[in-house]
Amino acid sequence: MRKVSELGERKVIQTIIGCLETMPKMPIPFGDDVSAVKISKTALAVVKTDMLVGKTDIPPGMSLRQAARKAVVMNVSDFAAKGVKPLAALVSLGLPITFDEENLRQIGLGLNEGAREYGAYIIGGDTGEASDLIISCSLIGICKKQILIRRSTAQLGDIVAVTGEFGKTAAGLKILLDRLDVPEEIRKPLTEAVFWPKARLKEGVVLAEAGFLSSSIDSSDGLAWSLHELSVASDVGFTIDFVPLAAEAIEFARFFNLDPLNLGLYGGEEYELVVTVKRKFWDNAKKAMENLGSRLIKIGEVTEEKRLIVKNGVEIMPIEPKGWEHFKS
Amino acid sequence: MRKVSELGERKVIQTIIGCLETMPKMPIPFGDDVSAVKISKTALAVVKTDMLVGKTDIPPGMSLRQAARKAVVMNVSDFAAKGVKPLAALVSLGLPITFDEENLRQIGLGLNEGAREYGAYIIGGDTGEASDLIISCSLIGICKKQILIRRSTAQLGDIVAVTGEFGKTAAGLKILLDRLDVPEEIRKPLTEAVFWPKARLKEGVVLAEAGFLSSSIDSSDGLAWSLHELSVASDVGFTIDFVPLAAEAIEFARFFNLDPLNLGLYGGEEYELVVTVKRKFWDNAKKAMENLGSRLIKIGEVTEEKRLIVKNGVEIMPIEPKGWEHFKS
Repeated sequence: MRKVSELGERKVIQTIIGCLETMPKMPIPFGDDVSAVKISKTALAVVKTDMLVGKTDIPPGMSLRQAARKAVVMNVSDFAAKGVKPLAALVSLGLPITFDEENLRQIGLGLNEGAREYGAYIIGGDTGEASDLIISCSLIGICKKQILIRRSTAQLGDIVAVTGEFGKTAAGLKILLDRLDVPEEIRKPLTEAVFWPKARLKEGVVLAEAGFLSSSIDSSDGLAWSLHELSVASDVGFTIDFVPLAAEAIEFARFFNLDPLNLGLYGGEEYELVVTVKRKFWDNAKKAMENLGSRLIKIGEVTEEKRLIVKNGVEIMPIEPKGWEHFKS
Repeated sequence: MRKVSELGERKVIQTIIGCLETMPKMPIPFGDDVSAVKISKTALAVVKTDMLVGKTDIPPGMSLRQAARKAVVMNVSDFAAKGVKPLAALVSLGLPITFDEENLRQIGLGLNEGAREYGAYIIGGDTGEASDLIISCSLIGICKKQILIRRSTAQLGDIVAVTGEFGKTAAGLKILLDRLDVPEEIRKPLTEAVFWPKARLKEGVVLAEAGFLSSSIDSSDGLAWSLHELSVASDVGFTIDFVPLAAEAIEFARFFNLDPLNLGLYGGEEYELVVTVKRKFWDNAKKAMENLGSRLIKIGEVTEEKRLIVKNGVEIMPIEPKGWEHFKS
């Protein structure tokens, strides 16, 4: 019988979902960024839970405060992808018995920061003893039924776009996990991207409320994986002409003689939005983001042919359906 | 600086809450059985999260399926105390790397059972690797604002009542944790009470919707602790005349020469409701429970004098504010 280490996170989830009775008329299918229940004819309660485990999810050098903040922010990012403002969060904490009052305070401060930065409040939770530090955060928000953008509704001809550059977190994680010796001016911006992730909440809310998007996901499992998920859910292909890479990531790649495109495509723990924009709304969508002081970067187009490719100059390469996955190292 | 083992669960929670900005007009204060956010003029979304950790919360002999079911049921019990039906649950799973597909299936089946028994569905979640098995369950439900029963509104003269007998789980846990050698006819009903806890959801919903109660809590941290919490929150005292003890718990106590009253008062992991009933509604409340095939057992009265006592025959004893608490052994 296969162990979870052989199955990988996605098959683990499939196995468990296979044992569950599905809620009739479930407003959002299993596997999307968030879940929802109908609360009136027109409104949904949107919920999401995501767990951070010390051993696997907190890289060396990240403080407890940063980790606690991140546990909230990574959930907010999923709300951002669906254009929903979180109202409140619940937190379940598993605490090693060796933790002291100052550790608790750092966790409390980080949780509060993560919530307040995005307008939410921590309203409850639970604690217990555990071998690893566990921070399980659940968010709740309310939205109009028609606001919520699925993963499955990208249309032929739509523009594929992202809200920022890629590669910094992948490079930063590599520095921290492999304890790489790099000049401070490269190390700092890359590790800061890991320590202080930002969710694109205001961008997601504006894009969703204006009805500009046909599909959306966050890039927490990496750009390639996000594109893969959107294309499979929508049953379309994407041709990617351009992967926006952060200057610091390019510099890092040059320093270690790595392919920067790989850093940008196959990283993870990045919280940009990956969206398809209805073509007629492209100019408006781009302008709306600029008005927020943000960006919407065109990276490609939705194609009929169901393949995922990236054009790198004259070279055309397939985008592999791979990305960050728990249980697999 | 004090460690969490010295602080105990309640001080751990206080320390973290001390770092949080409180949501303005929070419908339910920190520390009640559930949390809530306002979703319209008249309605609340009610949420709750509670985490089960393999190492500390799963006694020897409990199967994965039972543990997963319990992780849902213990949350349902908190909803029961507030009279709110859960609609859906999210589950965050921390899984040891050694788990196999059958382990996952047992967890999936248990989660589904726990939810379906009470009319809810599992609608989403998250998994990751952890050293201990972690099952963090979050519930969501909707209720009318005025339905929700606080802990803080017990009134002088109200009747203190419970929905069942006490002592079985405390005895069952003692058998399992201390690996006691007891006759099968005693062991079976007591350990079954641990393995298959039931939440008093239909009882809680009927009592709340009819407006019979002035305060309510579940007894997951033990009867004594529940009474203590209600009395402190409501700023009243209770005189308890009668602690209903399960026959099997009395038999167990006799077998080991223990005080059965201690088992009933200071156990934990029991999921009866502990409520105060408005005196004028007592007969109706009792009848409503009988109509459900359930019971409402009067155990005492709310008193002006702010002390918690139990009358055991002619003897009057204080009820200690102690009960099940994480981090303290």
